[in-house]
Amino acid sequence: MEIKVGRKTTPPTPGYSITMRVEAPAESAMASTIAEAIGEAGGALTALDVAERRADRMVVDATCDARDADHAEQIGKAVAAVPGVTVLEVSDRTFLVHLGGKLEVTPKVQLKHRDDLSRAYTPGVARVCTAIAENPADARRLTIKRNTVAVVTDGSAVLGLGNIGPEAALPVMEGKAALFKQFADIDAWPVCLDTQDTDEIVSVVKALAPVYGGINLEDISAPRCFEIEARLREALDIPVFHDDQHGTAIVVLAALTNALRVVGKRIEDITIVVSGVGAAGHAIIRLLHKQGVGEIIGCDRRGVLDPEQEGMDDFRRWIADNTNRSGRRGTLREALGGADVFIGVSSPNLLTVEDIAAMDAGAIVFALANPDPEVDPTAAGRHTAVVATGRSDYSNQINNVLAFPGFFRGLLDAGVSDITGEMMTAAARAIAAAVTPRQLSADSNRSRVSRK
Amino acid sequence: MEIKVGRKTTPPTPGYSITMRVEAPAESAMASTIAEAIGEAGGALTALDVAERRADRMVVDATCDARDADHAEQIGKAVAAVPGVTVLEVSDRTFLVHLGGKLEVTPKVQLKHRDDLSRAYTPGVARVCTAIAENPADARRLTIKRNTVAVVTDGSAVLGLGNIGPEAALPVMEGKAALFKQFADIDAWPVCLDTQDTDEIVSVVKALAPVYGGINLEDISAPRCFEIEARLREALDIPVFHDDQHGTAIVVLAALTNALRVVGKRIEDITIVVSGVGAAGHAIIRLLHKQGVGEIIGCDRRGVLDPEQEGMDDFRRWIADNTNRSGRRGTLREALGGADVFIGVSSPNLLTVEDIAAMDAGAIVFALANPDPEVDPTAAGRHTAVVATGRSDYSNQINNVLAFPGFFRGLLDAGVSDITGEMMTAAARAIAAAVTPRQLSADSNRSRVSRK
Repeated sequence: MEIKVGRKTTPPTPGYSITMRVEAPAESAMASTIAEAIGEAGGALTALDVAERRADRMVVDATCDARDADHAEQIGKAVAAVPGVTVLEVSDRTFLVHLGGKLEVTPKVQLKHRDDLSRAYTPGVARVCTAIAENPADARRLTIKRNTVAVVTDGSAVLGLGNIGPEAALPVMEGKAALFKQFADIDAWPVCLDTQDTDEIVSVVKALAPVYGGINLEDISAPRCFEIEARLREALDIPVFHDDQHGTAIVVLAALTNALRVVGKRIEDITIVVSGVGAAGHAIIRLLHKQGVGEIIGCDRRGVLDPEQEGMDDFRRWIADNTNRSGRRGTLREALGGADVFIGVSSPNLLTVEDIAAMDAGAIVFALANPDPEVDPTAAGRHTAVVATGRSDYSNQINNVLAFPGFFRGLLDAGVSDITGEMMTAAARAIAAAVTPRQLSADSNRSRVSRK
Repeated sequence: MEIKVGRKTTPPTPGYSITMRVEAPAESAMASTIAEAIGEAGGALTALDVAERRADRMVVDATCDARDADHAEQIGKAVAAVPGVTVLEVSDRTFLVHLGGKLEVTPKVQLKHRDDLSRAYTPGVARVCTAIAENPADARRLTIKRNTVAVVTDGSAVLGLGNIGPEAALPVMEGKAALFKQFADIDAWPVCLDTQDTDEIVSVVKALAPVYGGINLEDISAPRCFEIEARLREALDIPVFHDDQHGTAIVVLAALTNALRVVGKRIEDITIVVSGVGAAGHAIIRLLHKQGVGEIIGCDRRGVLDPEQEGMDDFRRWIADNTNRSGRRGTLREALGGADVFIGVSSPNLLTVEDIAAMDAGAIVFALANPDPEVDPTAAGRHTAVVATGRSDYSNQINNVLAFPGFFRGLLDAGVSDITGEMMTAAARAIAAAVTPRQLSADSNRSRVSRK
């Protein structure tokens, strides 16, 4: 997913959580004084423990969220400025989580006794190999293939960090694999490729496919991602899914389904403006098109996609040919006038509150650019019925993790070899249906409370 | 490892273990009668449970080892022939072990709360990615790389089964990965490649290397395995180890070290005949050569390697140039006359007891061909001081599992990028030294008892 992170104006985030170990005079008010210093420096205290107490000195562990590295340092200085206090150590909890990696490969079979070895390894394993050689379909029954997904990247478009390469992409792919296991009991493995050549990526993934029941492409830059996905789908007999495209499209459709319920509009009557026609935007537009949306208007940096523009790639060409039937032209802002829905998968701060105010009554705004949305969600909320972002620190987060684990669970269980638009539509409907009519609300935090 | 399995003359093996569920009259002697029928049919009973007992009938689960599939069927028939007995079901325990695969990928981090996600995944993970992008060496600290090994095969020389392809090879690679975890806490992942093209294998492994701290090549046929290993060692900054070669060489050297202690000979005084100059034979000869062995004589199917033979590949050429200083010619049998050690990594039943009897006093025989050794080990034992095979059903099994887990543990912990002969020699010595002088004996079963 193309999610950017770390803007300066955000509130403190658990992604920047630090634990400070401080030594202080053993005074009864001291722990409160330290907590106060953290609060005054803008840190969000999440835990405080007196770890040790002697006659005159005590040791306190205080954990708080900061906004960023500079802010964490300021908080440390603020605590150190309390009279008598020494900061012994500051540890970054995020880095602690990643230390040594986030995955392990564990045997599901017992290997205690020599006889266990004889069955799981040689000589017994030879019979299992022979069975698969004679009937290749048995690989799904007698190996990890059936439950295993490759999370493949070339590190070319990682989060919002850009082209940082395969090693630096690995923490994200490990995280993704952990989410696969946690939410769908799928064994996913990171495949971070030291090549950004389209042909080579295709041939490498083809070569390593025998072990896997599915391929999840991740954080590969557009337009290469389209070609890689198309060629792999053609070549392989297992499903190939580019999460940045289709995962995003599924969760957006799910969110839109429920948002339309909230405002009482029908999908065939509405006009949707999509800002951004890269991997995510393209897939969103295609999936929305299948739903019979009244009108879709795709915009790029220059405004409404111009069907007469020269040198358009096949993907933009498809959008130009299949959307904007009313033939609108002009800027993104102009397109928004009277629109029902804005879906942004583009860049921060493209729109003002006035632009949003010009939308139709009951406007729906999904401002998914990261780290900063296309428009300030709080301000936009004054002129809209529903506002969602990609961020975890606002209501209505739209995140792919709602889709990809369960979607692959279904693909693997059904032994599917090709992914269709119908499957994606069904997945979006199922996710939307997880919110009952009673829970339905314009604000997920309110829904969460009502679910208790 | 090139291990063949399943010969007809073997005793019952845990690799062919079956569980029969039978219904029988509820007579007090019935369980014993069933056990007797299994024993008379040649099955080795390992467990018997009366699963259910009613007034007139009872259900018994009997588990036994068989020699092979035909034998398992005969045992079933023998049990069914007991008056009043019906065999309800026969399950193959080896297949049960492999059902659904033998590995899973599990998160090492907690993912219960939204804040856990913020640290392990977005937004927190972005800082970890940035740290690695700025300092690539941090990948060993902040990702799975440091503890992760790829078990790479193209399925071209799997066990003794030959070229069965990547899917059918997967159960072996899974087993290998399970052994890595069990014996050295290494996270190993099977990479079964759908190509047998040397150039492509090299480029695929190079492309996927960023995730791994080491590469274990496995069951790739000679001579391609030599070139693939050499080119990957040249290209990569992580250790590349072809287990069929070097793992075998290490365990053979370890076994030889202790066998020489048993017979009281010095390595520089002895003559070793090696039968087989493929992947394993070549690596064994090179490692032995480094130890200053008195004389090494390599033999292939035609007899002692002839230095004047035409069209020899580089690997045979090295053997011809660096061994057999006395310039011997002739058959394997002739070479054996007066030799101190025979090491066979070739074909079953090449030698007779008479050939062994012609060796020097205190002869050492490692007959490692699988499934059947180069000479019958029991018969050979009458004319030798030490006999070892690759089989688990005789004393003195020489198996790579003694070496590869610990060897990679050391490589990963030391952050080694290249494997040297010194490391392999040190590993062999360490394995040999695991047998104390008090435990030392010509027979591992006797050692095992003395260890209690």
